[in-house]
This record gives sequence, structure tokens and C-alpha cells, in this order.
Amino acid sequence: MPVPDAPVTGAHPDQPEPPGGSQWPSRLDPEIAGRLRRTPDGLVAAVVRQHDSGEVLMMAWMDDEALHRTLTTGRATYWSRSRREYWVKGATSGHHQYVRSVALDCDGDAVLVSVDQVGAACHTGQRTCFFTELPVTGQVTP
Amino acid sequence: MPVPDAPVTGAHPDQPEPPGGSQWPSRLDPEIAGRLRRTPDGLVAAVVRQHDSGEVLMMAWMDDEALHRTLTTGRATYWSRSRREYWVKGATSGHHQYVRSVALDCDGDAVLVSVDQVGAACHTGQRTCFFTELPVTGQVTP
Repeated sequence: MPVPDAPVTGAHPDQPEPPGGSQWPSRLDPEIAGRLRRTPDGLVAAVVRQHDSGEVLMMAWMDDEALHRTLTTGRATYWSRSRREYWVKGATSGHHQYVRSVALDCDGDAVLVSVDQVGAACHTGQRTCFFTELPVTGQVTP
Repeated sequence: MPVPDAPVTGAHPDQPEPPGGSQWPSRLDPEIAGRLRRTPDGLVAAVVRQHDSGEVLMMAWMDDEALHRTLTTGRATYWSRSRREYWVKGATSGHHQYVRSVALDCDGDAVLVSVDQVGAACHTGQRTCFFTELPVTGQVTP
């Protein structure tokens, strides 16, 4: 699938409201963009794991342009819902994520990003963002 | 954290529009509910992995009630955005997900659900939903 250098024109019918401040239309390959099923604010979930150990490190959000930048720069790039801006992981913290592969899921609402994580993935300094255990009170076994 | 049997009253300020057809107010522990940061349609991302191998199997969506049912029944339960209803994984396919643990991430917009997956996680029959590789053209190494 060729990656166009110029912005793709035309909005997608399932994205009535792209994130304010985002680059839209994005430069994402229209073949990929056509498979995405976005949240009402135009995002897909990006699940991030360490490429060799498989450890799940974090979940962040991508709009089309963030996915385009991730695929074409090899640096994990997300859309911040709170700051309403793009952020390149590690740009300020030094905790870079070098992208090894990206896979789309069967219904187009999530990508699995396999990275080589430098240092901590979480802004709290923990290796993974998933450190708060919730109580499972209804254990069932097969 | 106690799990109330009765519905919690009062809406959360960051959830103006709970999913139509959902059980709202939900029965989710208010301490947990207070930590969630939901999409505009009231959902958090549920990342599902096989508990022992760590393999990432799928991503689905949960509203507060789906998370409550997952924690209290030990059976992974999601909210379907397309059908606008709750679904218990495996109820029709037999591909059950027995919940071993659930972890909330640092900013409350995702949970990591560790399960014992029976058979295929994906409705296509594949073990994982993330089987479509996207081209990474800008590889960078540390």
C-alpha cells in the first residue's frame, strides 16, 4: 500500500468530528483509513507491547495522522485527548518507543504496536501503566 | 473496595451520554467508577491477554456495568458498539474467557484483562484479532 506524501482529501463517513487541532485530512493511506472504526472523537485504541517479551506497556489513542506518523517515522506517535495535541513518546521524557511492527485488529478499532521501549513506559516511572489491580470477586474456572 | 448490590445513583461528570440501552447508573464500585476516563460514548478500552503466555488476544469496549459484571462474575463481559448491547465472551461461540485478573491503567481509560481463553479469541477463528500487519516504512533503531 503506497503512502501518499500529500494529504488525502475527503472526510470519512464514520468520523463526523475529527479531533480539534488535529491534522485533517490526514496523510494516512486511504486503504488503511477505510478500515478504521473510530470513537465518536475520531480515535482508535493503540495497545503497546514490548516487542520481545510481549509485556503490555500502555494504551494510548491515535487519530489517522498519528497512525500515519507512527508507520512512516518508526517513532510511536499518539493523540493526547487532554492536551488535544500530538505527542511523540519519549520526546520530552527520553523514554522512546522504537516501532518494530504494527497490526490492525479484525474490526478496525485498535492497533497493536510492538516497540522497543527505552526505560519506563508510564509517566509515573513504572515500566507499565497497568499497575492498579482491581478486585475480581467472581472467579470462575473452566 | 466493596461492591454494592444496588445501582449507584448519580451520573459521572465526564460521562454526559451513557451508551443507549446500557444499564445506567451501573453497579460498579463508585471508587473504581470515579477513576475512569471514558470516551464520549462512555467507554473504556479493555485489552485482553492470555494470562500465562501474555499473548495479546483482542481489544473490546466496556462501560461501567460491563466492568462491574466482569469483576463480579469472572466472565469477560463487554459492550458492543455496533449492536448496542452487552455480550459475554463465549456465550454463543463457546470461546469463553475466564478472568484471572484485571488491572486499571494510570489514567483510567483502559483495563488490562488477563484471561484463560478457550479456543479462538477472534470471531474469524484466529487465535488473536491482531492478524493484519500494517507496513512500517520508517524503521528507526536506538
